[in-house]
Amino acid sequence: MATQGQVITCKAAVAYEPNKPLVIEDVQVAPPQAGEVRIKVLFTALCHTDAYTWSGKDPEGLFPCILGHEAAGIVESVGEGVTEVQPGDHVIPCYQAECRECKFCKSGKTNLCGKVRTATGAGVMMNDRKSRFSINGKLIYHFMGTSTFSQYTVVHDVSVAKIDPQAPLDKVCLLGCGVPTGLGAVWNTAKVEPGSIVAIFGLGTVGLAVAEGAKSAGASRIIGIDIDSKKFDVAKNFGVTEFVNPKDYDKPIQQVLVDLTDGGVDYSFECIGNVSVMRAALECCHKGWGTSVIVGVAASGQEISTRPFQLVTGRVWKGTAFGGFKSRSQVPWLVDKYMKKEIKIDEYVTHNLTVGEINKAFDLMHEGGCLRCVLKMHE
Amino acid sequence: MATQGQVITCKAAVAYEPNKPLVIEDVQVAPPQAGEVRIKVLFTALCHTDAYTWSGKDPEGLFPCILGHEAAGIVESVGEGVTEVQPGDHVIPCYQAECRECKFCKSGKTNLCGKVRTATGAGVMMNDRKSRFSINGKLIYHFMGTSTFSQYTVVHDVSVAKIDPQAPLDKVCLLGCGVPTGLGAVWNTAKVEPGSIVAIFGLGTVGLAVAEGAKSAGASRIIGIDIDSKKFDVAKNFGVTEFVNPKDYDKPIQQVLVDLTDGGVDYSFECIGNVSVMRAALECCHKGWGTSVIVGVAASGQEISTRPFQLVTGRVWKGTAFGGFKSRSQVPWLVDKYMKKEIKIDEYVTHNLTVGEINKAFDLMHEGGCLRCVLKMHE
Repeated sequence: MATQGQVITCKAAVAYEPNKPLVIEDVQVAPPQAGEVRIKVLFTALCHTDAYTWSGKDPEGLFPCILGHEAAGIVESVGEGVTEVQPGDHVIPCYQAECRECKFCKSGKTNLCGKVRTATGAGVMMNDRKSRFSINGKLIYHFMGTSTFSQYTVVHDVSVAKIDPQAPLDKVCLLGCGVPTGLGAVWNTAKVEPGSIVAIFGLGTVGLAVAEGAKSAGASRIIGIDIDSKKFDVAKNFGVTEFVNPKDYDKPIQQVLVDLTDGGVDYSFECIGNVSVMRAALECCHKGWGTSVIVGVAASGQEISTRPFQLVTGRVWKGTAFGGFKSRSQVPWLVDKYMKKEIKIDEYVTHNLTVGEINKAFDLMHEGGCLRCVLKMHE
Repeated sequence: MATQGQVITCKAAVAYEPNKPLVIEDVQVAPPQAGEVRIKVLFTALCHTDAYTWSGKDPEGLFPCILGHEAAGIVESVGEGVTEVQPGDHVIPCYQAECRECKFCKSGKTNLCGKVRTATGAGVMMNDRKSRFSINGKLIYHFMGTSTFSQYTVVHDVSVAKIDPQAPLDKVCLLGCGVPTGLGAVWNTAKVEPGSIVAIFGLGTVGLAVAEGAKSAGASRIIGIDIDSKKFDVAKNFGVTEFVNPKDYDKPIQQVLVDLTDGGVDYSFECIGNVSVMRAALECCHKGWGTSVIVGVAASGQEISTRPFQLVTGRVWKGTAFGGFKSRSQVPWLVDKYMKKEIKIDEYVTHNLTVGEINKAFDLMHEGGCLRCVLKMHE
């Protein structure tokens, strides 16, 4: 490629300061170093974690940075030693790496690969602990090892999932975060069995993906809980069978659910990031076996609590990150499932904009009717 | 039997008020009604749950009552409809019933049978919601459905485990609570695998039984944590391989353990009942898979807390009651294991006294050198 080995100047949405509108800038993207891949990002969606860091509430947030972690694109060039992808491959950048060599990957018990964690957490690349992004020599930090709000980005090779080139990138970009998180919370973390009663707190994209996962796992009742009743109509299409709006009750929501289900649900999922709801999600579980999975990300410093009796009497409290999916191995499998129409994606895409409209896209996220807004990154 | 169908007057240790010495009284024990079994208690041990209720801190504690729940004896008579045991059978009364008919028993997921729970929680028998104990017509409450600090007690038939008549009752009485709780926490609740690193907080009887269970499960390192270093010598005999006294460190104990184990333990067990230690036990677990089991019983109203990030990054928080063992089915199996020398019991019995010395036995519980004090109930 003509650009290989060269610095690429392209458009990117830069977050200079918390809560200030992103600025579309001409950014210089350095070539990939050893073990790195430069990707032409074609489509990116927005996720609440982007908004969280942008808000300034994330103590690990670094500015200026390029946010974005739910995207799809095509490999532009690769650095030394990169063997598993090559220019032209269709890929999804994965904020959760999978090196297949570290203690975590080898354990067989978790998807939380540790190989590049210290670099991605610090907004840099592992090879030289520096950023590949700059504007006229001024450093711009990476974000989550992905930074997909740029027309080109550089990621670690262990963070790239090679996918079916037939898959529509404006859709499968959603497999970078929210949809797998919800599906995997059900399939990998909770392991919901046929006939189970499931409660889902929060009916955004992740909550709806939980519903879809629960339906495919054969759950008999899928109870959606949200303070916005307008979400219930859409949620039906994803498998939710009953709706509860906590505002309609005087008693605590956990008690409402225990009463509705003769003792509690078999599995609950917190898809909001609210520590009080996390407690309710645990406490609405059935004594003896109910399992609650924390999927939402709480604000920094907040804590969950409950009486230990809740656990001693058989409830289990868990959490999930990227739904427990091994990213490089399983994102391509999810793409294949989508291509075979075994999982939904199109239905989550409620808005399509261009990168230049990214601030409008963030505004849309806070509106009830928006699930995912996909940005086209190139004209 | 001459006593069948008759009220039996016998000795029992009565708790009249919280924290006041137990009083040995002549107590009238009514005959068993339908679905009930009257047991001649031969040996009973003392457990910290007895002391907890006696202390007055248990909000469900009812006075006057007859405490005791770790015992063994012989069936004296049975009420109408009781088919699984008969007079002369050697039995262990079980505070956790197993009816094999309720939602809990049928689930296959829990040992927390619910059949007689509302009665035992209220200190009465289910048949008529009354007590079988009285002193000159004045009612004395049951405790945990067992009340083994009496020479005779009446229990529900679903709470009686029939055991090998060859088993020494002065030893296997310990299978009524502490030892199964520890072993089962490892085998049933945590399901520790060979090679695992295990941390045990609190090296009393339950903690030592956890160590024994972990050793038999093939754990590679068994780290005992206690603020009384004198316990370490004894603990070696139960399988503990390393010792940590939190008083020897300035940093939080969870950090000490994470540093000692290259990232944290695979399984931890809280065997004290202290909510701060429960948090430490969770947070010393390895990211990605570490599982913490709450075994100890915290004081009423106290709460556990942690950052949800601990769970989102793969730790699991659980609890156990009676080690997850199904009482009627599995206590006999544990007795058989003891008879085959596959599990220890004798080594937990540090003191032997008579029922008349029960207050001395409670004093002994608070001394470091005491694991279990077994009381002989009849001369």
